[in-house]
Amino acid sequence: MNVLVIGANGKIGKQLVEKLTNEEEYKPKAMVRKEDQLQQFKDMGANTVLADVEGNIDDLTAAAEGMDAVVFTAGSGAHTGADKTMMVDFDGAVKAMTAAERAGAKRFIIVSAIGVHHRENWMEKAPYYSAAKHYADVWLRASGLDYTIIRPGLLTNNAGIRKIQAAPDLERAEIPREDVANVIVTSLKDDSTVGKSFDLVSGDQTIEAALKTV
Amino acid sequence: MNVLVIGANGKIGKQLVEKLTNEEEYKPKAMVRKEDQLQQFKDMGANTVLADVEGNIDDLTAAAEGMDAVVFTAGSGAHTGADKTMMVDFDGAVKAMTAAERAGAKRFIIVSAIGVHHRENWMEKAPYYSAAKHYADVWLRASGLDYTIIRPGLLTNNAGIRKIQAAPDLERAEIPREDVANVIVTSLKDDSTVGKSFDLVSGDQTIEAALKTV
Repeated sequence: MNVLVIGANGKIGKQLVEKLTNEEEYKPKAMVRKEDQLQQFKDMGANTVLADVEGNIDDLTAAAEGMDAVVFTAGSGAHTGADKTMMVDFDGAVKAMTAAERAGAKRFIIVSAIGVHHRENWMEKAPYYSAAKHYADVWLRASGLDYTIIRPGLLTNNAGIRKIQAAPDLERAEIPREDVANVIVTSLKDDSTVGKSFDLVSGDQTIEAALKTV
Repeated sequence: MNVLVIGANGKIGKQLVEKLTNEEEYKPKAMVRKEDQLQQFKDMGANTVLADVEGNIDDLTAAAEGMDAVVFTAGSGAHTGADKTMMVDFDGAVKAMTAAERAGAKRFIIVSAIGVHHRENWMEKAPYYSAAKHYADVWLRASGLDYTIIRPGLLTNNAGIRKIQAAPDLERAEIPREDVANVIVTSLKDDSTVGKSFDLVSGDQTIEAALKTV
């Protein structure tokens, strides 16, 4: 199974690519924006492609050719403004979905944010961020893709514990980025997660068991 | 015909409300954000309502109750940042559409911007602005509303000449705000504009004739 990881250079993306290289059945392709980001993924044994979600859809479609799945874990980051949030987290995601559809990569997993499906939970100081995530999710649900929408809580750099809670609506709580990557890997393996959207925080269920309940 | 004008205090909105008060068959309701913006519309003989597209959908739905049509001509303006563009021009428009649907106000006219339906035309310096307009239009087309999407070119404060060009794709050119207001009034009268989207600039056709061709 060929998996394009968009946003591979991010903290979740990097761990995801590495985990996928360790799985017999997966061949990840790390998509990054800069030349100097390529080598680390080649060293892992992953395929790589240079492309930008702010670029044109043709380049993204070329990147998605031959892929079975696309994981969108790109984000403009906390240091950029609302303009980049709009163009990366929302418009970039829409372009990635269009590219996946055009390339015939049916499976699409997006990393969203906890609670954004309810307006009243949107971040007071950065509603545009919540809006961008929400609208990308809405767009994906309306697409013809086999989607999974993962809405993690407060991301930490702690080591993963492989114990989670996953449900349509959860209280805001922490989850290690590594466990988000673990959940993505397991979602790729578990077709029952197709067409599902769920909040995700650390919990006491195994990932395998929790994903069966979403 | 009761018409809610969202963004009534804007330069197009103000002229639109005034024109509608002069039409026997229309009763406009000017929606504004601030108390001190109300009187000018009362003086025109228009109904008024205090509400904000950045507010909650219930308030917008209340504003749309009893209306036959909603015109969305609100915009965050050139002086605000991308955050407001996202939350007013896009999310605000989406909320207005939701409110119109809930209130049973089937007819919905939006003022978009020329060319935004083609990515390659998006403003280089403010792609988020073009994106916000574009996605609001996409949302409206996907809604169950009887929509008209008007995409005017470069807006001027010149007096209207009531001569236009309207077509799916036009070269960027000027159009007086007053003529955009005139086109909205005529669109409300002409059901053949339902389900239509068009670029709009000054031209040599009468508004009535031009709208028959879109």
